[in-house]
Amino acid sequence: MSRRVDINCDMGESFGRFILGNDENVMPHISSANIACGYHAGDPNVMRATIRLAKKYGVGVGAHPGLPDMLGFGRREMKITPEELKNYLIYQTGALRAFTIAENVKMQHVKPHGVLYQMVERDESLAEATVEAILELDPELILLIEYGTKAYESAKKKGIKVVAEAFADLHYGDDGRWIIEKRKVAWDPKLVAARGVSLAKNGRLETVGGKVIQIRADSFCIHGDGPNAPEVAMTLKKTLEQEGIEIAPLAELAV
Amino acid sequence: MSRRVDINCDMGESFGRFILGNDENVMPHISSANIACGYHAGDPNVMRATIRLAKKYGVGVGAHPGLPDMLGFGRREMKITPEELKNYLIYQTGALRAFTIAENVKMQHVKPHGVLYQMVERDESLAEATVEAILELDPELILLIEYGTKAYESAKKKGIKVVAEAFADLHYGDDGRWIIEKRKVAWDPKLVAARGVSLAKNGRLETVGGKVIQIRADSFCIHGDGPNAPEVAMTLKKTLEQEGIEIAPLAELAV
Amino acid sequence: MSRRVDINCDMGESFGRFILGNDENVMPHISSANIACGYHAGDPNVMRATIRLAKKYGVGVGAHPGLPDMLGFGRREMKITPEELKNYLIYQTGALRAFTIAENVKMQHVKPHGVLYQMVERDESLAEATVEAILELDPELILLIEYGTKAYESAKKKGIKVVAEAFADLHYGDDGRWIIEKRKVAWDPKLVAARGVSLAKNGRLETVGGKVIQIRADSFCIHGDGPNAPEVAMTLKKTLEQEGIEIAPLAELAV
Amino acid sequence: MSRRVDINCDMGESFGRFILGNDENVMPHISSANIACGYHAGDPNVMRATIRLAKKYGVGVGAHPGLPDMLGFGRREMKITPEELKNYLIYQTGALRAFTIAENVKMQHVKPHGVLYQMVERDESLAEATVEAILELDPELILLIEYGTKAYESAKKKGIKVVAEAFADLHYGDDGRWIIEKRKVAWDPKLVAARGVSLAKNGRLETVGGKVIQIRADSFCIHGDGPNAPEVAMTLKKTLEQEGIEIAPLAELAV
Repeated sequence: MSRRVDINCDMGESFGRFILGNDENVMPHISSANIACGYHAGDPNVMRATIRLAKKYGVGVGAHPGLPDMLGFGRREMKITPEELKNYLIYQTGALRAFTIAENVKMQHVKPHGVLYQMVERDESLAEATVEAILELDPELILLIEYGTKAYESAKKKGIKVVAEAFADLHYGDDGRWIIEKRKVAWDPKLVAARGVSLAKNGRLETVGGKVIQIRADSFCIHGDGPNAPEVAMTLKKTLEQEGIEIAPLAELAV
Repeated sequence: MSRRVDINCDMGESFGRFILGNDENVMPHISSANIACGYHAGDPNVMRATIRLAKKYGVGVGAHPGLPDMLGFGRREMKITPEELKNYLIYQTGALRAFTIAENVKMQHVKPHGVLYQMVERDESLAEATVEAILELDPELILLIEYGTKAYESAKKKGIKVVAEAFADLHYGDDGRWIIEKRKVAWDPKLVAARGVSLAKNGRLETVGGKVIQIRADSFCIHGDGPNAPEVAMTLKKTLEQEGIEIAPLAELAV
Repeated sequence: MSRRVDINCDMGESFGRFILGNDENVMPHISSANIACGYHAGDPNVMRATIRLAKKYGVGVGAHPGLPDMLGFGRREMKITPEELKNYLIYQTGALRAFTIAENVKMQHVKPHGVLYQMVERDESLAEATVEAILELDPELILLIEYGTKAYESAKKKGIKVVAEAFADLHYGDDGRWIIEKRKVAWDPKLVAARGVSLAKNGRLETVGGKVIQIRADSFCIHGDGPNAPEVAMTLKKTLEQEGIEIAPLAELAV
Repeated sequence: MSRRVDINCDMGESFGRFILGNDENVMPHISSANIACGYHAGDPNVMRATIRLAKKYGVGVGAHPGLPDMLGFGRREMKITPEELKNYLIYQTGALRAFTIAENVKMQHVKPHGVLYQMVERDESLAEATVEAILELDPELILLIEYGTKAYESAKKKGIKVVAEAFADLHYGDDGRWIIEKRKVAWDPKLVAARGVSLAKNGRLETVGGKVIQIRADSFCIHGDGPNAPEVAMTLKKTLEQEGIEIAPLAELAV
């Protein structure tokens, strides 16, 4: 059987008059949409419109909850307790879920946004709070997170579905950790595609220090707020397919 | 059969460090709790804690969505479109619903907060947006609103459940409309109770101008942010029961 | 003496990661910048950066305070009291003023944003609150507003400086009122320039209904959040100058 | 000459309908008011009302800027850059300063709120950003902070006025650091007074671990959001005076 991967993208990051990303032109080229839920980005109108757009292209819908910091776009750490995190996740994911019900779409996954993503990967109690939020709200939801992290391990331990992901359009340090960009810059679409192919075929990726690291992932993330996100998405998808790699729904990749 | 009524109260209006109301001492004396959803008041931790408290006392749980104006506590009008309103309602009600799922409690009703309550009573397109939000999210939810208003009529027309309510602790003008208090003041508990009994027995209430108006209602509202809310709630409940009026779940009063 | 006019533009409307407008490319072509102050748009970093940019090009710095509604970008009406308005204006204008002090720039003017602009033009008590806010904070500040409106009249009556403005890139209804665009669209730069020249030379402007109205104005506004704002600004300025109209500092036009 | 000290209190922490503290009854018993500026607490109406109240009792007015986290009341750490901090401080302090101008009151000091207070004490670059904010906005402002901290040292080094303070109503750990209370609890007024007297006379204070530490301070802080804040303030002031310690304006204590 051929290698099958998912392409996920952060979407629905506009807020009222503030337009971020180019969702209309990215959506045709991805298989999973991580939709912001109003804490770091997104608003009710945007959430609904983004779900409709995902539905139109058969893209899986997931929640992309973040820290309550619109001004910092959820990209700067806040010291919150596991209990606070759990409730913030239930609030945001529940709000997005309401729109999937209204639009008659199945809700597929949850992926934490920005620095919260890193926090739940490193801190065991925050990792557990994340998995508990999913268990309490909808145990069928898939957690999308990096392989081998606290959140990944917690999902396996508590028995919720999880898919490992890698970042096709972010740098990794020599410590194997991806590096957050406070304001996403344009990446060469061919470079992102080459990284995706390498990740899909042999899980290898070069760090900023020139070291080659091994990453296990079935879903590749690109960022919707990059200035050339549509081209990056299109090129990544096309290149993967040309290399015989099949784009598959997240649900079929979950373990 | 004896007259049966519901007592509802606005609850969960604290926000982080800002404590509003005295929910612990009001909850034992009411039958329905309208819980703020984070737009004009309330936060995820407060929402969850309030649902737990309602569960403890067997009180029906409802969403109390408001305008996105924490600074104005949802008590000053904003010109929003029906589409915006619908999505704001789905967002807030969906978020609260997520906590009812997490706490294994049935979600019972929706009641708009503050000036939004008045807006959906007077404006037909906002009334319809409100009913559509309920239809799209969960058609079993009961709308709690005044009899004969646009929102009431829209609920009847579109076939969702509705219960008529009256305000036991607010003044009414001679035009039959209740008068908003930007900052709730203490009311004499006996006066609120007497008004409740009169409303329950013959639907009569005196306006600020001394006129007697007729109000049809099966649920009586008291406000949780009044300084003596627990005493008001307790006195109203006790007096109604002494007068042979039964406190009943909202679901059994819905038409 | 030749006709002298000011070109003003709404600037500094980005908010954290949410970039709005193209201030770097608009600034060289205007003479007054109305800078958002954090209520409907703008944040402390953006405010400071925008003042620096204005300073670089010798552009006059003004506050552009709005309603506390980031989600609605200050473009939907809220019922606030004159007292609230006065304090919102002092807060926002005072915050911007602090950055002018930090950057050693003189603060020149105040112009209300969005629907607040219309509110203070039509409502006498809001108009007076606006002028009082200026008097209480810094009586040297110039109010930028349409001729003959409540706010204009109040400024004249209470003795603060005022400059009349017209909107070069917005439609006017037959009632002589400009029409708000919830999301600014691109305008033909030549059309805006032609309207500017006509306004400058004889104060004539065609309404959406084809009626010609008379507008008295010494400052012409263009909007920084239009998709082609830099080209609009550049074309307007160049055309005015080609027609022998001089671009002058607001302070020299104040009455 | 007799020992002279200042009593400072966090004030103006209400936000719209959300009332926090009991400023009317605390104000008569203190000499310096640290007024919230709208980021973690406070709003324009509250800021102005609090300045008026301070003016009435001859209490010195200071800014009490915090992190942009109303939900967490500025009591949970956020990773912000020195540049962000500087601008957040200028924004908030500038906004409060505008109201002092409107009320014709001299602005006296700046004291960071909550966890930000601790951040600028421990992190040198944040400490320097704080002092630079004061230098850029108004070099006459006094920084109120603990003796010997990074912020204190930075103030001395860069030449702004500073007063050392101690917390009369908070516990200290054995490491000499005060312990934040996410929700202020009631303290025995006599205990607070006794601690104040000990601090004033010999700078000695007992930690939670029973260790006696030495604290150098000329201003003693009590918290306005404690449930019995007025009684605490009154008792502290009276006891200090009975012990021959004079309550003095902050400006006369600055070094």
